Amino acid sequence: MLDQLRAEVLKANLLLESEGLVKMTWGNVSGIDRDRGLFVIKPSGVSYSKLTADKLVVVDLDGKTVEGDLNPSSDTPSHAVLYREFTGIGGITHTHSVYATMFAQAGVELPCQGTTHADHFYGSVPVVRPLTKEEVAEDYETNTGLAIVERFRELKLNPLEMPAALQAFHAPFTWGANAVDSVKNSIALETCAQMALGTFQLNPKIGSLPDHILEKHYQRKHGADAYYGQRRG
Amino acid sequence: MLDQLRAEVLKANLLLESEGLVKMTWGNVSGIDRDRGLFVIKPSGVSYSKLTADKLVVVDLDGKTVEGDLNPSSDTPSHAVLYREFTGIGGITHTHSVYATMFAQAGVELPCQGTTHADHFYGSVPVVRPLTKEEVAEDYETNTGLAIVERFRELKLNPLEMPAALQAFHAPFTWGANAVDSVKNSIALETCAQMALGTFQLNPKIGSLPDHILEKHYQRKHGADAYYGQRRG
Amino acid sequence: MLDQLRAEVLKANLLLESEGLVKMTWGNVSGIDRDRGLFVIKPSGVSYSKLTADKLVVVDLDGKTVEGDLNPSSDTPSHAVLYREFTGIGGITHTHSVYATMFAQAGVELPCQGTTHADHFYGSVPVVRPLTKEEVAEDYETNTGLAIVERFRELKLNPLEMPAALQAFHAPFTWGANAVDSVKNSIALETCAQMALGTFQLNPKIGSLPDHILEKHYQRKHGADAYYGQRRG
Amino acid sequence: MLDQLRAEVLKANLLLESEGLVKMTWGNVSGIDRDRGLFVIKPSGVSYSKLTADKLVVVDLDGKTVEGDLNPSSDTPSHAVLYREFTGIGGITHTHSVYATMFAQAGVELPCQGTTHADHFYGSVPVVRPLTKEEVAEDYETNTGLAIVERFRELKLNPLEMPAALQAFHAPFTWGANAVDSVKNSIALETCAQMALGTFQLNPKIGSLPDHILEKHYQRKHGADAYYGQRRG
Repeated sequence: MLDQLRAEVLKANLLLESEGLVKMTWGNVSGIDRDRGLFVIKPSGVSYSKLTADKLVVVDLDGKTVEGDLNPSSDTPSHAVLYREFTGIGGITHTHSVYATMFAQAGVELPCQGTTHADHFYGSVPVVRPLTKEEVAEDYETNTGLAIVERFRELKLNPLEMPAALQAFHAPFTWGANAVDSVKNSIALETCAQMALGTFQLNPKIGSLPDHILEKHYQRKHGADAYYGQRRG
Repeated sequence: MLDQLRAEVLKANLLLESEGLVKMTWGNVSGIDRDRGLFVIKPSGVSYSKLTADKLVVVDLDGKTVEGDLNPSSDTPSHAVLYREFTGIGGITHTHSVYATMFAQAGVELPCQGTTHADHFYGSVPVVRPLTKEEVAEDYETNTGLAIVERFRELKLNPLEMPAALQAFHAPFTWGANAVDSVKNSIALETCAQMALGTFQLNPKIGSLPDHILEKHYQRKHGADAYYGQRRG
Repeated sequence: MLDQLRAEVLKANLLLESEGLVKMTWGNVSGIDRDRGLFVIKPSGVSYSKLTADKLVVVDLDGKTVEGDLNPSSDTPSHAVLYREFTGIGGITHTHSVYATMFAQAGVELPCQGTTHADHFYGSVPVVRPLTKEEVAEDYETNTGLAIVERFRELKLNPLEMPAALQAFHAPFTWGANAVDSVKNSIALETCAQMALGTFQLNPKIGSLPDHILEKHYQRKHGADAYYGQRRG
Repeated sequence: MLDQLRAEVLKANLLLESEGLVKMTWGNVSGIDRDRGLFVIKPSGVSYSKLTADKLVVVDLDGKTVEGDLNPSSDTPSHAVLYREFTGIGGITHTHSVYATMFAQAGVELPCQGTTHADHFYGSVPVVRPLTKEEVAEDYETNTGLAIVERFRELKLNPLEMPAALQAFHAPFTWGANAVDSVKNSIALETCAQMALGTFQLNPKIGSLPDHILEKHYQRKHGADAYYGQRRG
């Protein structure tokens, strides 16, 4: 079932390790088939070197396993919430990548300090509040997803323009048009976080880049008249 | 003798280099056979690229060589103390990994700033006091192990829940259910130390994550009802 | 057309990835044939692993495509300006390399703190002002190149002695005698930026190295009586 | 001539790149045959990937080429001084390794903050003053070596116990019993510098480790009764 999607989600998960975004099994990627309402996700605790397409787990939008012998990622309910609420997204990545996690742990949003950031994220990457004791006790992973959605509503953020969130005391989530695209946003987030750490050291009062440069860089890559890449080649 | 244990301890030692935890010969891993009261450890000063299972040294719980032509690691008496005192552990790793060593040298405990840490260490990783002149003169390596044990008693720490210590002016020790597991805790410690260094830069007053999140993350991986991974698959 | 130049520009672009200067497709290198007034440049958004000599694009000094099926880099107009204005250069590299970008984002020029820097850059690497709203709207990439040229005139810098610029809120540009040489200057810039970040941490008031040492190091490698390397072998 | 020494010096030079101590051609290693009063050194500006034993240059203790078609490293006179003055050493390494160079550029000596350092360097690694205008003009590279020797005399340092120096505004030099050993000291210096940078961030007032621990670690590896490694196996 979903062989092509499985192949893509496998590829995306393997990128986590080759791109240096994960240690051990600290990450997972999923990709969704919107027509069927099913998504494919990494099994829990399986090392990337032993991961194959048939070990991936197919789950429905309630996070229930539809196909697969292994437990899906323990973060599966968080993915399910994001797919239900952010209906335009096709893939989700969760990692504990080092630099993005520093910002999450510090509770500091990642400002848009330059064009590297503006090429991928339309403004500051938000921090999502930690869950309450009750939320953790009730359903930790589902509520993790809901807290992200809540934060995006508060800030009136469009998840297609801001494909990342930093959960306080935890780590980043990113998403995208598909599984591989969500990993690319994780790479961008990690690199921007590393750059921002050094930029803050050099200039602690640095703010964000001017709006017109943010607008230009974001739109030349993602806007209606985007001209980056080969789409109009 | 102990062929399977030798194979596992070899694999664990080789991980030190491939995971970037050591330069040159600055680290060693051991694994114990509790039934026989013998442990297998890296020989002293042998480079990882030349390490083979038959070069590993079998020693008893007094640190005396039982089998092997080479000198065991100079840190063997520290391992022996930890095996004698922490009777639930099956493997020990000692490295001078860069970020964990920064905290050890600075005499700063590693706080539990986020879930990456909470997934492996149940609270702050403690700093162990430096040895006195007399302790160094008497039996440096044995007293190194004893100082760790002393610190765990002072703080009433359970070594199975806190599988790591930072010795002041020195470097980290970690342990685990077996040799490979102890290396995994070294990887986690090193990554958490790197994250914490940046987190402190972003927010010097950051404390620890809320208790209920620590509890949740530690228990979902290590508690009686753990559901991370495939144990209940 | 321009087969030898294509081969060299391909090699130079591949160096970006192998030297760790780029993530994904965040960089591009070009090289010029001054006799023909044409330059060869990376196509936009094509990954380095899929880049071949025949995918490179040949453009004229107005940035118009002369040969090639793919869109040239979106930064092509910036390259064209630099080739028109800095007539002694033969290759240009643009990256978002992490450490150089920190300085660009912070708006902090990179001072010549030591001989590593002096071996490649004759003084501080300048910061170029961000473009105005009007400049961005009119022709972002062309005006990017013009702002660099403007800054070099203001500071009376010789682009052959200062083969690098840091564009504020953006990233570095470097150039050189040819495409590969421009990449070497990117490597040098990135390393010097990393060194400077740590040097500032250790000594926030550090200035530049003494003039006579700058002079010596720059000239022993680039001056009329240079004796570094095998040129006089 | 000196085939075995050439092989060892080649191996040592190649380590510079594989251990991440150099970019491009920013480093050189030499090794000496004390009986013949000749040393073998890297040719100037030749990339490590193209380096072969026969390209190495044999020079005498005045730095004059005895055998070899290529120019020896431009730093050859510095090596010659060190071999003449530090008569117990057998190999020398010069790099611009990133973290050690930060300390050199900042003019900050590298304190012995922990046992990693104490295992290799018996105390703080000293900073050597920058050369005067006259010294640079007269004979830069020879005077570079002489300034190191002057500093060691001032501080009454034994070069066999302190096999490293940080030249202000420049970079590190290390030495050892032979060429490979001098590279090992460069690896140790670079790692200790990286650790120290983070240790200072965590605890800006941190001093050196207690003397009795320095003594113990240095002597267990280098003293008359050393028991680290297999020498007494």
